[in-house]
Amino acid sequence: MNPESQNPGLIIGIVTVSDRASSGVYSPIGSDAIEQYMREKIVSPWRPEHRLTPDGTENVRNVLIELTDSAGCALILTTGGTGPAGRDCTPEATEAACTRMMPGFGELMRRESLKQVPTAILSRQCAGVRGRTLIVNLPGRPGSIRTCLDAVFPAIPYCLDLIGSPGMETEPKAFRPPG
Amino acid sequence: MNPESQNPGLIIGIVTVSDRASSGVYSPIGSDAIEQYMREKIVSPWRPEHRLTPDGTENVRNVLIELTDSAGCALILTTGGTGPAGRDCTPEATEAACTRMMPGFGELMRRESLKQVPTAILSRQCAGVRGRTLIVNLPGRPGSIRTCLDAVFPAIPYCLDLIGSPGMETEPKAFRPPG
Amino acid sequence: MNPESQNPGLIIGIVTVSDRASSGVYSPIGSDAIEQYMREKIVSPWRPEHRLTPDGTENVRNVLIELTDSAGCALILTTGGTGPAGRDCTPEATEAACTRMMPGFGELMRRESLKQVPTAILSRQCAGVRGRTLIVNLPGRPGSIRTCLDAVFPAIPYCLDLIGSPGMETEPKAFRPPG
Repeated sequence: MNPESQNPGLIIGIVTVSDRASSGVYSPIGSDAIEQYMREKIVSPWRPEHRLTPDGTENVRNVLIELTDSAGCALILTTGGTGPAGRDCTPEATEAACTRMMPGFGELMRRESLKQVPTAILSRQCAGVRGRTLIVNLPGRPGSIRTCLDAVFPAIPYCLDLIGSPGMETEPKAFRPPG
Repeated sequence: MNPESQNPGLIIGIVTVSDRASSGVYSPIGSDAIEQYMREKIVSPWRPEHRLTPDGTENVRNVLIELTDSAGCALILTTGGTGPAGRDCTPEATEAACTRMMPGFGELMRRESLKQVPTAILSRQCAGVRGRTLIVNLPGRPGSIRTCLDAVFPAIPYCLDLIGSPGMETEPKAFRPPG
Repeated sequence: MNPESQNPGLIIGIVTVSDRASSGVYSPIGSDAIEQYMREKIVSPWRPEHRLTPDGTENVRNVLIELTDSAGCALILTTGGTGPAGRDCTPEATEAACTRMMPGFGELMRRESLKQVPTAILSRQCAGVRGRTLIVNLPGRPGSIRTCLDAVFPAIPYCLDLIGSPGMETEPKAFRPPG
């Protein structure tokens, strides 16, 4: 009997959006920071599925759709490409891939990041749902990633319950409203 | 002489969006909480107009349009259907019914609700204007409804003035900027 | 040799959106407050380019496009037309002129304005980028303009760097993240 078929666990897509990283100029330290954060918090079975893509709305959207529809991710976390510059299109790609947007994620991540730097309002990061998958944009810098995850991660386990994805158990135990 | 034609007062639509409530499984306690709140605050003439509808973008949009264009509501408050789950479509229906959106309502309601529960960012509640009618989405639970109304109700009387609807007088007296 | 061709500096568009101002009923004090604020903060070369337009999405959008594509503004600040009333269309015009929106500006301006008045959530002000130009909506009243600029101006110099517009130096020196 295959133990994986008994409890395949959650698959979390981690997408590095970066022209430079895609061409091998620097290592994708953002994705390492995201994976590390998940290892610290999640106590139920899960595994990461990494992708590296250059900027560009279509590139990023295609990766998000592949991770949702083919790879079966319940949660996708992106890093990079959320600024105001011309090549930054992660929010547009996320909106193109999602069936509904979740404005509360971007609002809270910007608000918490603003306590660190006054330029946090320049981030256009957003989140949304495609079917049973939650997609959340994170910044590119590891320090900013942690600030944003500390803000929104507590709401993610219950969100996954609501959209009908496999459950996630965390330590400390995530809040889930009664009834 | 018909006293109602002298001062018909404000009509406030209260819409319960719920598959369960529509099929009679539980009583619409959200709408009772909304009506109770209005009775506490509004001192000028008004009356509620209740509706109960199952989830589904078209169902909810049609009710919002009927309350605006036929029933003559100046203000419509919805309860339920603002979460991330597949059947939750109240924000989409509100956007479909409105001619302009008011992002400040959703931002503030999520921010205040977040002081109660870390999952408040999962609410996609929004507000907008259709002609001379203000439509505001509220959560489903009575406790959360009060938190949200405490946040945004102080701005509603002046908003109704600005969009040209019948006036609303409240106790305590609502803020209206000078001139 | 023409000194202006050596350092033409930044051009800042200041747009007064007002039916009343356009018909000469009152002086555009909002635009004066914006220009005064820029004089206090910017220490590198710049000059204002003023425009006065009645409300109406197409009117305002055309002015924003002319200031961006013909007048060469790197930054455009509008005043007026962001409320919920039927004639208020500055946010719609801004969205129509922009290639990407920057939600963090509106969120922060409403949050800071809310510390002054409970009706601040009625402002629909937004910001976005058209090519290499940042467009930011400000309120109509001079006091509210200052509140909003105090909130978002610290992020503007770095934003202009990121979108590839001419640099802006300020006093106190603006924050720019390292590397």
